[in-house]
Amino acid sequence: MSTAPNRKLRLGMVGGGFGAYIGGIHRFAARLDNHYELVAGAFDVNADRGHQFAAENYIAADRSYTDYKAMVAGELAREDKIDVVAICTPNHTHFAIAKAFIDAGFHVICEKPMTTTLEDAEALHALAKSSGRFVGVTYTYCGYPMIHAARAMVAAGDLGSIRVIQVEYPLEWMATAIESEGNQQAKWRTDPKLSGRGGSIGDIGTHAYHLAGFVTGLKAEALCADLTTFVPGRSLDDNAHVMIRYEGGARGLLWSSQVAIGCSNGLRLRVFGEKASIQWHQEAPNEITFSPLFGKPETIKRGRDDLGDGATVRTRTPPGHPEGYIEAFANLYSGFAEAMRAINEGRSPSAIGVNVPTSYDGLKGVAFVDAVVDSHEKAPFGWTKPAHA
Amino acid sequence: MSTAPNRKLRLGMVGGGFGAYIGGIHRFAARLDNHYELVAGAFDVNADRGHQFAAENYIAADRSYTDYKAMVAGELAREDKIDVVAICTPNHTHFAIAKAFIDAGFHVICEKPMTTTLEDAEALHALAKSSGRFVGVTYTYCGYPMIHAARAMVAAGDLGSIRVIQVEYPLEWMATAIESEGNQQAKWRTDPKLSGRGGSIGDIGTHAYHLAGFVTGLKAEALCADLTTFVPGRSLDDNAHVMIRYEGGARGLLWSSQVAIGCSNGLRLRVFGEKASIQWHQEAPNEITFSPLFGKPETIKRGRDDLGDGATVRTRTPPGHPEGYIEAFANLYSGFAEAMRAINEGRSPSAIGVNVPTSYDGLKGVAFVDAVVDSHEKAPFGWTKPAHA
Amino acid sequence: MSTAPNRKLRLGMVGGGFGAYIGGIHRFAARLDNHYELVAGAFDVNADRGHQFAAENYIAADRSYTDYKAMVAGELAREDKIDVVAICTPNHTHFAIAKAFIDAGFHVICEKPMTTTLEDAEALHALAKSSGRFVGVTYTYCGYPMIHAARAMVAAGDLGSIRVIQVEYPLEWMATAIESEGNQQAKWRTDPKLSGRGGSIGDIGTHAYHLAGFVTGLKAEALCADLTTFVPGRSLDDNAHVMIRYEGGARGLLWSSQVAIGCSNGLRLRVFGEKASIQWHQEAPNEITFSPLFGKPETIKRGRDDLGDGATVRTRTPPGHPEGYIEAFANLYSGFAEAMRAINEGRSPSAIGVNVPTSYDGLKGVAFVDAVVDSHEKAPFGWTKPAHA
Amino acid sequence: MSTAPNRKLRLGMVGGGFGAYIGGIHRFAARLDNHYELVAGAFDVNADRGHQFAAENYIAADRSYTDYKAMVAGELAREDKIDVVAICTPNHTHFAIAKAFIDAGFHVICEKPMTTTLEDAEALHALAKSSGRFVGVTYTYCGYPMIHAARAMVAAGDLGSIRVIQVEYPLEWMATAIESEGNQQAKWRTDPKLSGRGGSIGDIGTHAYHLAGFVTGLKAEALCADLTTFVPGRSLDDNAHVMIRYEGGARGLLWSSQVAIGCSNGLRLRVFGEKASIQWHQEAPNEITFSPLFGKPETIKRGRDDLGDGATVRTRTPPGHPEGYIEAFANLYSGFAEAMRAINEGRSPSAIGVNVPTSYDGLKGVAFVDAVVDSHEKAPFGWTKPAHA
Repeated sequence: MSTAPNRKLRLGMVGGGFGAYIGGIHRFAARLDNHYELVAGAFDVNADRGHQFAAENYIAADRSYTDYKAMVAGELAREDKIDVVAICTPNHTHFAIAKAFIDAGFHVICEKPMTTTLEDAEALHALAKSSGRFVGVTYTYCGYPMIHAARAMVAAGDLGSIRVIQVEYPLEWMATAIESEGNQQAKWRTDPKLSGRGGSIGDIGTHAYHLAGFVTGLKAEALCADLTTFVPGRSLDDNAHVMIRYEGGARGLLWSSQVAIGCSNGLRLRVFGEKASIQWHQEAPNEITFSPLFGKPETIKRGRDDLGDGATVRTRTPPGHPEGYIEAFANLYSGFAEAMRAINEGRSPSAIGVNVPTSYDGLKGVAFVDAVVDSHEKAPFGWTKPAHA
Repeated sequence: MSTAPNRKLRLGMVGGGFGAYIGGIHRFAARLDNHYELVAGAFDVNADRGHQFAAENYIAADRSYTDYKAMVAGELAREDKIDVVAICTPNHTHFAIAKAFIDAGFHVICEKPMTTTLEDAEALHALAKSSGRFVGVTYTYCGYPMIHAARAMVAAGDLGSIRVIQVEYPLEWMATAIESEGNQQAKWRTDPKLSGRGGSIGDIGTHAYHLAGFVTGLKAEALCADLTTFVPGRSLDDNAHVMIRYEGGARGLLWSSQVAIGCSNGLRLRVFGEKASIQWHQEAPNEITFSPLFGKPETIKRGRDDLGDGATVRTRTPPGHPEGYIEAFANLYSGFAEAMRAINEGRSPSAIGVNVPTSYDGLKGVAFVDAVVDSHEKAPFGWTKPAHA
Repeated sequence: MSTAPNRKLRLGMVGGGFGAYIGGIHRFAARLDNHYELVAGAFDVNADRGHQFAAENYIAADRSYTDYKAMVAGELAREDKIDVVAICTPNHTHFAIAKAFIDAGFHVICEKPMTTTLEDAEALHALAKSSGRFVGVTYTYCGYPMIHAARAMVAAGDLGSIRVIQVEYPLEWMATAIESEGNQQAKWRTDPKLSGRGGSIGDIGTHAYHLAGFVTGLKAEALCADLTTFVPGRSLDDNAHVMIRYEGGARGLLWSSQVAIGCSNGLRLRVFGEKASIQWHQEAPNEITFSPLFGKPETIKRGRDDLGDGATVRTRTPPGHPEGYIEAFANLYSGFAEAMRAINEGRSPSAIGVNVPTSYDGLKGVAFVDAVVDSHEKAPFGWTKPAHA
Repeated sequence: MSTAPNRKLRLGMVGGGFGAYIGGIHRFAARLDNHYELVAGAFDVNADRGHQFAAENYIAADRSYTDYKAMVAGELAREDKIDVVAICTPNHTHFAIAKAFIDAGFHVICEKPMTTTLEDAEALHALAKSSGRFVGVTYTYCGYPMIHAARAMVAAGDLGSIRVIQVEYPLEWMATAIESEGNQQAKWRTDPKLSGRGGSIGDIGTHAYHLAGFVTGLKAEALCADLTTFVPGRSLDDNAHVMIRYEGGARGLLWSSQVAIGCSNGLRLRVFGEKASIQWHQEAPNEITFSPLFGKPETIKRGRDDLGDGATVRTRTPPGHPEGYIEAFANLYSGFAEAMRAINEGRSPSAIGVNVPTSYDGLKGVAFVDAVVDSHEKAPFGWTKPAHA
């Protein structure tokens, strides 16, 4: 029989109040597996709204803070202080907030992209390492159990040496200038000051890049990119085509798009090796197609007991009972919980606490965006190497 | 802005401890939307195991009970008594447990089938009505938002008058005699004393029947069934074919099977009307195919804002972010929470609290199994009318 | 190297002129593999139209006949007489035409249903046997190579003993009363005098029944049917639900419908055995899904070299190059050609000439319709045995 | 009523004898719609084998030639000379053979790539124009009716201005060095002397490029390519990644691969415009998915009567009856027949004879391969413009 730790982790949150999308997802994820209790927050730049949000979420009034600095100070002063903070604010604020909490000794869960500049990303990753604090970065899609199954297959050599990686992340929702029609989610994503140098490539291309690297374990050696802005008036790319050369000779093609009409959340990964291929699609995440050389493509469903520990510990229901995006996010949170408890207790984490995305993944993501934009700006001169592959 | 109630509902649970599958699902569902706090339980017939389970789930020791009678007594004596109990025990015990809690004034959430005999089902439903207590029955699949969207389409006349209803629920996992190899889940499902008269028809056929009725609003007038037991040594049917005549002239075909190799959880519903058809599959639950007469079949994805209140209030994420079985179950729990609060506060429930499955659905399910078995036993004499359609 | 016979077979056709759908399909099928030369015909009840049609199809004027009797006489008188006649006229005329040609010594290819009464079917089958003439009946769907692959899998025991057969053939095109709006195809199909006792069950249900029997090799022992006519003013069923008991204990469910909006030509077969299942869908006919017990469902594509002779000799292109309905029909024609040549030459046919549908299949199809209608008319009294299973 | 021409076209063939794959496809295509009669050929470099092949295909002995030069001479001398020759020989011989037949006044149907050098392609296209002879080049996939439907949608503005074109053509069959194990098809494809500069990009990438241009009507302005040879010992690319910039600002991504395990014939096209998108997949060629902006994706099936003339005249059967690769090829042949007859008769061709692939398409294909290889060889210097876009 498993043994639960003797108390839940105490979670605080910065941002993520009324009207925020991703904050709600973090809370679903924190609750699902019962590892966290949300006890504090600075949920809104508008203090009244923030307090009301706290009250509706069963947060004690004295732990609803007006900003993150007050929260750091307030929590530091408590006996029952939070263990970890989740940062759900716009990208350009991640760095300062994360640094403040780490400096105060807290663990951190940070939305991606981790920062908006490569310098900040390098500094934050260095701080994470030197401080010994856990910094998780929510590359959501590596929370899916079948992604862990895929990674295990590649690692076990089931595909042989990897040849070709096709990854794409097309979306429809920004196919028109909704940022000028009041859509706040689109507004900050199209503002270089809030989002950094990348548009689609930063918002979703980094997810695709992370996923490809996570499953294959390969690092990019060079890339060549073509960025386009289709919607008039937009400052950042809303479509990106990237050719990638991986170490060891594999070749990749990455496409991210915010103008791909008909595509809801079309993250798709296909990996072709010498001996087999796999493919996975985020909208049908409970299965992988595995095709052996000259063989019969097999549908492998989540919930089988032969998919490896990484998948098994991230699975709650048997085959045929669909698990989805919230469960994937919860898997990150449960992995973060285990990773933090292992740090706190000076031990190695169990299976769910390993292979979780951290500040190193955050750093690689920011470096990828930089390389893509550099490559594009150097066109027609071509290939650029990411700083951290 | 929405307003949260001033405290979470206090939930108790009977059954559902170590090794139980469905108990864990109830707890995921109770936590996800933050409407419940699990505070008490009688989790196991083995007291030590039950107490250990309680401890690992952050339940106070004095609220870990050795059986349901002690739990009724213990909770009745408390100021902070539970609001509702979830019954996750084997089918044949549902009636007595539910009756005890209702009699003590508690609301009840009960697994399906609600009881193992029609008499008990009738008695329990009558008690639910006379007591004013809420009795929810977990017909899981009506928790899916696209099922509510489908129901709304039918109700709005988008399909015209309904002609044909094809529903099926095939499973693979009992294709061999796993009940004699130690599988506990299979063991009670194949034991008439624990499960009642129906095998596959009771375990999953009732889900299919409920779903067809839920979406179309039609009642069955007569049915004609052929039950088979394919796995040697098994006492109850593991495959059921049922032809159904609905009021108003619609015709239905229902298939349930526990020996359908290749089918993980293949609940599928197709409804054909005069003007259009819809189809939905539980393993891809985030979409419906809508086909207008002589038109182009459309894929309608969960998360659109034009699917009606029933779907919208059961939706957490935008199109393309898959939600699954746990979210569907959580939708039941959130609907139950609202229904109970409405009763407690003497008001009408909001959208999520209506069209939730109750003891009436539980009663109809038990009556359906009875009619199916009666029809089969009368073969070749044919058509039988369910007592509660 | 293969060796072609020293001349093509000479084909005549009755019916199938301007405006006929199925006649054109017969001609595509006859031409594709170069085994036939269309040299004679009585294409139309309107003589002028028939002659014009003949001229446009490169038929010599002296072999364009005004009716089938003239054609029998004319061809009998020639040195280069036809080898075989294709009968593409309405159902109620099949018997007399087929009998005339067989009596004159010609082989026959006949559309299904072979006749409109069981007596005629029995007589025609008896005549075929006694005459030694070949009578092929175009149960199209057993022309698909993957159906032969499926049959071979069942025969080889890959599925173990068969338990459940689910077959369906839903169509949309007659969902409204198009027969009263001038649609000739719908008109004869809804007229009992031209079509016999079955509506959807005769037109397409027989295809489904044939396919299930073809793949599994099982004979029906009893069936129980519910027929419905949904479109007002229609005389024959446009929806049929049939429960089938096969010899050896297998159970089947058959659904045919002409009012299934959204279904173009939705013939689908699923066969579940003790060890594995297979499924096939006519609209994606180039693959089968094979699911081994507790294993990973496999996609098996047409064109692989390990699918058995029956599939291989019916395959023209490698995997991934879709072949379709016309190729399936051509496979029947090529099989018929081989069967006829084998008869002519007094030898056994090669692979493509065996397992082709003949008058025996035609007889079983007519008997099936009779049993279904009998069962329905006896409702609620139930189960009926087909005369020829 | 339609009127057939007064005789079939007389077809000759060079190459395509025993063991040839594509020759057989040409013959299926020529027969299906009854526009051609195969009457002459030089089928094999081995004269005996060629004559035997001719005999088995009902070709008169005096029209079975030992080589193409004898065939030109022999046919020129006849009254009933061929109208057109189909060239099914290895790529490097296309130019000389085509030139010889054109010079002798014959029409030509030529396999793609039309030639192995850009100079030859330019010369042959110029000759086609100056001679007035028809030169069809078999870009198979524009024979599919749904591709014509897609083209019509784009032309009608249903998609608005085009933004992104994703096209891919992955294959599995050359994932190992089968060319060194006796596979003749693989052998010539991997030999630069027989195939020209392109491996996968020439063999299948050109199909993808043609399809994208055919549907969208856009010309490439520049491209940037990364070619790889994964299988050891192979001289030409077996995987190609190409970023394309189209006139008017659209961006494209093209992937061709001969090492994509699991992909049988995975040609897939997705076109995203300002107002809608379409996607089509060669292995399910009878439908297109059409997604309107923020709308519900629609499945549009071949056989509907609202898809435009281009689709309608290439359609033989109603929706749901799959047509495939052979029918697509036959559509090319029927289009070629009409184009040739229109030339012969000095009139405009009807719908099936327009938008057929000719020497101009052949020229663009060869120029595309040249640009891709040039771009790759210039890496990391980038973008290259095709000579004929």
